[in-house]
Amino acid sequence: MFREKLLKDIEFIIELDKMKSIYRKTNVIGEDRQEDDAQHSWHISMMAVILAEYTNEEIDLLKVIKMLLTHDLVEIYAGDTFCYDKEGNDSKKERELAAAEKLYNLLDRKKADELRALWDEFEAMETPESLFAHSMDRLQPLLTNYKNGGGTWKEYDVSKSDIYQRISPVKKSSDELWCYINYMIEDAFQKGMINRR
Amino acid sequence: MFREKLLKDIEFIIELDKMKSIYRKTNVIGEDRQEDDAQHSWHISMMAVILAEYTNEEIDLLKVIKMLLTHDLVEIYAGDTFCYDKEGNDSKKERELAAAEKLYNLLDRKKADELRALWDEFEAMETPESLFAHSMDRLQPLLTNYKNGGGTWKEYDVSKSDIYQRISPVKKSSDELWCYINYMIEDAFQKGMINRR
Repeated sequence: MFREKLLKDIEFIIELDKMKSIYRKTNVIGEDRQEDDAQHSWHISMMAVILAEYTNEEIDLLKVIKMLLTHDLVEIYAGDTFCYDKEGNDSKKERELAAAEKLYNLLDRKKADELRALWDEFEAMETPESLFAHSMDRLQPLLTNYKNGGGTWKEYDVSKSDIYQRISPVKKSSDELWCYINYMIEDAFQKGMINRR
Repeated sequence: MFREKLLKDIEFIIELDKMKSIYRKTNVIGEDRQEDDAQHSWHISMMAVILAEYTNEEIDLLKVIKMLLTHDLVEIYAGDTFCYDKEGNDSKKERELAAAEKLYNLLDRKKADELRALWDEFEAMETPESLFAHSMDRLQPLLTNYKNGGGTWKEYDVSKSDIYQRISPVKKSSDELWCYINYMIEDAFQKGMINRR
């Protein structure tokens, strides 16, 4: 026999399919189509596997990957908010809290509490795991823009200082990655991928 | 300073973007478009987080998720082979071995060896981790077909016995999931989502 709890889990898993239709601002590299939340979440989880060795402090990689797999689930109901959209970000927290309530209520209490605690830890950006998770989440679109000759930096006229501000969690997480990122941003700037002001 | 090894890792991460353009036979639920390998790999990794509690034996969840995130990477060069395509599956192993060689050579030896060992363990389907990973990989398109009123079962006239054969790793991995799957397949059959022979 199977328990009713399993049916809840299956319904939750089916609901997750909607992540494949939540589009982000960033394009797939070299393509004229936006990536979606499922693709993005996979890519940054893979990045964590590859880049975990560069953190300053020891991290719990399973916790990091769980955070990265789940951190955008609230967007199933709250939608994607572009990181440089100041107006959208004013209402973001409220929309996402309501979404988390709705989504995690599909699960039984114990599992809901675990996923919710992971998201809260991610959002608070205080632990080594959440800082590294944020680093992956923010580095991935940087790499995409760099390979796409500017991407959303050019399209939305993002300043170099805003890019540095956005990627700053890396500074607290990994000296070696931070060094690489500085090199990449300055190179992108020199090559005209970031607008001069 | 950053090491040359990091540049290799970054190039590898950029190469992974191609997973977003490798299309599978299964559609996104309720949509007239095929899902891709990045979306699929994310979805089954999430499924592992949600369903790990149902395994008969204790499993190393981090290892399972690493397997699921990476198991389809060889398709970047070898392409997706439809599981019920008997001809395509004859040449699959050879194509995928060559692809693994090419892909993992982008990384330094230690990391390449770790990822390659994970893939070999996944393919051998002997350990509790690889059996559970296969269970997730095969259950996901089953759920999709069930929600899509038959999906690839109808489209490619797949028999009920072939479906049971394909999903059989679950039998060795989780009694409770196996029970649910039996219920689902028989329900799908009763509702005409699987052709009668």
